[in-house]
Amino acid sequence: MIKQKALDAAAAAAQEALDGGEDAAAAASDAIAATYAPFINGDFIYTSVLFLIGGFLVFWMAAGFAMLEAGLVRSKNVTMQLTKNVALFSLAAIFYYLIGYNLMYPLGTWAVDGVLSGVWGPGVLESVGVTAAGADDIGYASTGSDFFFQLMFCATTASIVSGTVAERVKLWPFLAFVIVLTAFIYPLQASWKWGGGFLDAANFQDFAGSTVVHSVGGWAALMGALLIGPRLGKYKDGRVIPMLGSNLPLATLGTFILWLGWFGFNGGSQLAMGTVSDVADVSRIFSNTNAAAAGGAIAALILTQLIYKKPDLTMVLNGALAGLVSITAEPLTPTLGAATLIGMVGGVIVVFAVPFLDKLKIDDVVGAIPVHLMAGIWGTLAVPLTNGDASFGAQIYGIVVVGIFTVVASLVVWFIIKAIMGLRVEEEVEINGLDSAELGMEAYPEFAKG
Amino acid sequence: MIKQKALDAAAAAAQEALDGGEDAAAAASDAIAATYAPFINGDFIYTSVLFLIGGFLVFWMAAGFAMLEAGLVRSKNVTMQLTKNVALFSLAAIFYYLIGYNLMYPLGTWAVDGVLSGVWGPGVLESVGVTAAGADDIGYASTGSDFFFQLMFCATTASIVSGTVAERVKLWPFLAFVIVLTAFIYPLQASWKWGGGFLDAANFQDFAGSTVVHSVGGWAALMGALLIGPRLGKYKDGRVIPMLGSNLPLATLGTFILWLGWFGFNGGSQLAMGTVSDVADVSRIFSNTNAAAAGGAIAALILTQLIYKKPDLTMVLNGALAGLVSITAEPLTPTLGAATLIGMVGGVIVVFAVPFLDKLKIDDVVGAIPVHLMAGIWGTLAVPLTNGDASFGAQIYGIVVVGIFTVVASLVVWFIIKAIMGLRVEEEVEINGLDSAELGMEAYPEFAKG
Amino acid sequence: MIKQKALDAAAAAAQEALDGGEDAAAAASDAIAATYAPFINGDFIYTSVLFLIGGFLVFWMAAGFAMLEAGLVRSKNVTMQLTKNVALFSLAAIFYYLIGYNLMYPLGTWAVDGVLSGVWGPGVLESVGVTAAGADDIGYASTGSDFFFQLMFCATTASIVSGTVAERVKLWPFLAFVIVLTAFIYPLQASWKWGGGFLDAANFQDFAGSTVVHSVGGWAALMGALLIGPRLGKYKDGRVIPMLGSNLPLATLGTFILWLGWFGFNGGSQLAMGTVSDVADVSRIFSNTNAAAAGGAIAALILTQLIYKKPDLTMVLNGALAGLVSITAEPLTPTLGAATLIGMVGGVIVVFAVPFLDKLKIDDVVGAIPVHLMAGIWGTLAVPLTNGDASFGAQIYGIVVVGIFTVVASLVVWFIIKAIMGLRVEEEVEINGLDSAELGMEAYPEFAKG
Repeated sequence: MIKQKALDAAAAAAQEALDGGEDAAAAASDAIAATYAPFINGDFIYTSVLFLIGGFLVFWMAAGFAMLEAGLVRSKNVTMQLTKNVALFSLAAIFYYLIGYNLMYPLGTWAVDGVLSGVWGPGVLESVGVTAAGADDIGYASTGSDFFFQLMFCATTASIVSGTVAERVKLWPFLAFVIVLTAFIYPLQASWKWGGGFLDAANFQDFAGSTVVHSVGGWAALMGALLIGPRLGKYKDGRVIPMLGSNLPLATLGTFILWLGWFGFNGGSQLAMGTVSDVADVSRIFSNTNAAAAGGAIAALILTQLIYKKPDLTMVLNGALAGLVSITAEPLTPTLGAATLIGMVGGVIVVFAVPFLDKLKIDDVVGAIPVHLMAGIWGTLAVPLTNGDASFGAQIYGIVVVGIFTVVASLVVWFIIKAIMGLRVEEEVEINGLDSAELGMEAYPEFAKG
Repeated sequence: MIKQKALDAAAAAAQEALDGGEDAAAAASDAIAATYAPFINGDFIYTSVLFLIGGFLVFWMAAGFAMLEAGLVRSKNVTMQLTKNVALFSLAAIFYYLIGYNLMYPLGTWAVDGVLSGVWGPGVLESVGVTAAGADDIGYASTGSDFFFQLMFCATTASIVSGTVAERVKLWPFLAFVIVLTAFIYPLQASWKWGGGFLDAANFQDFAGSTVVHSVGGWAALMGALLIGPRLGKYKDGRVIPMLGSNLPLATLGTFILWLGWFGFNGGSQLAMGTVSDVADVSRIFSNTNAAAAGGAIAALILTQLIYKKPDLTMVLNGALAGLVSITAEPLTPTLGAATLIGMVGGVIVVFAVPFLDKLKIDDVVGAIPVHLMAGIWGTLAVPLTNGDASFGAQIYGIVVVGIFTVVASLVVWFIIKAIMGLRVEEEVEINGLDSAELGMEAYPEFAKG
Repeated sequence: MIKQKALDAAAAAAQEALDGGEDAAAAASDAIAATYAPFINGDFIYTSVLFLIGGFLVFWMAAGFAMLEAGLVRSKNVTMQLTKNVALFSLAAIFYYLIGYNLMYPLGTWAVDGVLSGVWGPGVLESVGVTAAGADDIGYASTGSDFFFQLMFCATTASIVSGTVAERVKLWPFLAFVIVLTAFIYPLQASWKWGGGFLDAANFQDFAGSTVVHSVGGWAALMGALLIGPRLGKYKDGRVIPMLGSNLPLATLGTFILWLGWFGFNGGSQLAMGTVSDVADVSRIFSNTNAAAAGGAIAALILTQLIYKKPDLTMVLNGALAGLVSITAEPLTPTLGAATLIGMVGGVIVVFAVPFLDKLKIDDVVGAIPVHLMAGIWGTLAVPLTNGDASFGAQIYGIVVVGIFTVVASLVVWFIIKAIMGLRVEEEVEINGLDSAELGMEAYPEFAKG
């Protein structure tokens, strides 16, 4: 049908061209353009599709964090951890929409359009049935797909925090922190790089957010851990008391979910898919992301065998995640071999950083600080190793600026929340578990405790 | 290579045009059309891809229902609940293929072609290697992708029922109901709207099925619950005895799976993705769907805190799901803010409807009636709030017509099955659990009961 | 913007054509070609996208195997099974990259380019920002997407093995086998068919790998099971002692994950998506794949009801998987009805093969041999039933050649590993569970054993 239309249009145009003069030339061009017009915005469609697929994969990471954390806490705190994860994602969705998205892209107005438009107005997506002429940016992607994709990054940052402060933080104070993090802290610093701000101008390179997402989550988690202190009984008489994860299949499932979601996280950050170059680059990114995760897992497997004589599954899981965080700052330029090695270093970092934090009596329940903060710094520093456009100076500058801002902002916010609402549950609640005392609902009410 | 072909063809055509007369005009148009022909069916390809991706996401919801329900029943009935969920999906796949698909689109013949063609013949997909000329509808999508996508909606309807009547319904009678539901009840009423029937003509609006899918599953579940009665010991001396879900991480995982799958459910229902308008609309739908889920979860979180002084995870999960059901009738026209509010009302409905059903002694094990039926009605009624083409009259008309039909049909079918096979397990079986008595297989054989 | 460019270019070209002579013809063709050039590589983009989506779905199958196996082993061996699954996937990623990928496509050089290029050199993906002119094969897909997709098939082969030899094989010897399997055994025989080798020349048909992937995994697993022997106490005084899976929701989740991933496994194996024909074929494949899984599940459900008077969930799960394996050799040509029946035969095979293996005292913990080897053979033999291009002779030839090679190669490798490292844990370790003895980490440390 369309083929017939093209034939007819072209025939008519050619006929006119043969009959007429200069006007015919314009008519012919019009006819050809009209025939193919619906198909020449393929790049807009492809990139929007990239964001929608990438976005649902990164959404899925919210489930990954929930399962990972539910598997690594003790069973008496599992319901609380699940509640926090569902609630933090939902709050991120609301507050990134209300405030964060516009705060992150303050230089343009394309995301905002309405009565309360401007930096602080609620984001309004393109109108229903928008055409190429009316699209906010026909050379990029639909605003709805961009919002959807960017929102998931913001929510990921919040997910990182919940694991570290698990098993002792109160629900509502934690959620209050999430609101500030997703409405203000994350978007503000993200705008410095991804909103075209001063870090971007300084040639700081962070492809998908080793620093912008992961280190920010990690710094915020570290400040929380410092302010709230370790779990009762974790550090006793100079010894570290192991508090075992209650459900390792859940933790493993969570890791696989995160690994899967990361293809969207890094691949979508190419921000384009409508040309041969872009789709080939997205393909490189998928392959490199997978290689880094594999490298991180195997490094942790071998290292724990060598050091402890027994492979440690939770280290292997965190090794894979650290590999993923490590490659996130630059998943495009490395070869497969370099990506594997970059991931391996991430895995090594985890194996040494987990006991190191314990020595400092910083109690990070799921290992989020080694995985997201330390491997995030490593990944950001590694960019110039494979990307000639990056410099160590700019990378360090970005890490430090984002770090100082996040540390100060988080500390202030945690501090205010602590002063007003209190951060930590009562001692008795912590001993009996947050689930029964705070929620009145056990995660596994029928399984006897061994 | 293709570029070279285009160059050559265009050069030849232009040469001919310069040399010749009227014939050359036709030749030139042919040459240009032939060169670009493979690429001008982009809309067919994009929409087929939308259905394939949307379809596998909605398939994934079958796993979501299975995990949600397995997590919310007591451990002695978990294997049975899993068996029902795998079996119901498989039966839906077979009977929607054999009968339902053709029954749902009886007005055309494009889905059927073969010896037994016609309304009752088995659906036959387009032949292998079909070209644009031979495609059933080159302006839409491949029949295979449409079938795949539509099948998943039918299966979802059946999944909704299994949670309500859990822990007491016998396996085979339940599966008999599933067969009738997926072969006849669902497709018949769906054809009234989506097959271009009288509800469509009456301007009843239901974008992705708040009424056509969710309320139908909900009504069928309600009729089942009424006929089979509450679980033993659920309502005693005027009190409601809590029967706690055995595995809340599973229930949470199931909710996240459903949330993820819903992007395909609502996004795919745009039924087109090959133009700027369509992909931008799909993007709006993804964003709105997420906003409504978040709204539903937060509404339930806050409300259970206010009412019970303790947030209730299962209410939060059902709140998110109710938010999703609420936005399903119209995920396109609302703004992000309106979508969040529509979802929030869904969450509020769940918090009040769950105890309300208990007051009526209607025992709905997983809360499927509040989530799918009540929020489904709300979502359908909410369409005219944001969509100027819809009217409250037509919405109420559609809700009532579909409701009466499903209630009567379900009641008759449940009644006949009860008379012939019996619906409910023996009292002793129910007390000891369906797993050991009916299946001889425990879900967690090694975990001691507390 | 692009539309305007097209208008301008065409107008200029037409003007020139009217003004000039032969040179103008070439100029016009250049202008038109340049305008549409970015959009006429749609097939390259679509097929790359197919591989990326198909690839992440097949990646997800690694999680499916992990959950299925973790659910079907006893709780004392769960951590070990999880560790094996994460490690085997990671090793597959590394060794398929280092050796396997190049070994599998030895006839071309497009996958290798670098200092160590050639069959044994590390694969190098297309350079960053590659254009259509520089792409390895502009008529196919990006090398990165092809590598990503193919890698997942190699990893799947390894995943199949781990379930059979569970609960008694030592970690490192198993991983040593995985390295040889993914670096050499799988890629070598895969090259005979998919690398354009002699089995391909002999008209052996295996669309997505019933033989090339599933039977290879199955043969390797069978050899492992024969060499390592059954679990302690499995066969006693002529009786088969049931050793129940510890977590059936996990096993069900794993099955749903595999079912989902299979859409990518079979659909991606169309190896093209950029034309009406190809996307319609991919759609057929999705629909048929689903039908076969449903058929396998229902066949096992009915058969276990008839034989044992009680439906058996683990048989239903394996029935669905056997249906999937059965359709994998030819998911395109069957009608929906034929696909359902082909899957049903797979389900029947499982129900009879599981007790048959037990009679032979071959201890296959998760049923991988019936599912992947036997249903794989059935599926390969069934190809000529629906595909006129296939012959039973060629199918049998392929099955036998691949079988003999894999049996001999696996046996030799298992034997060497056994001689050097030992395969089996100490008796005491097996009794107490591999988790505490080998890993020092329980999967469910808090759940008391019943």
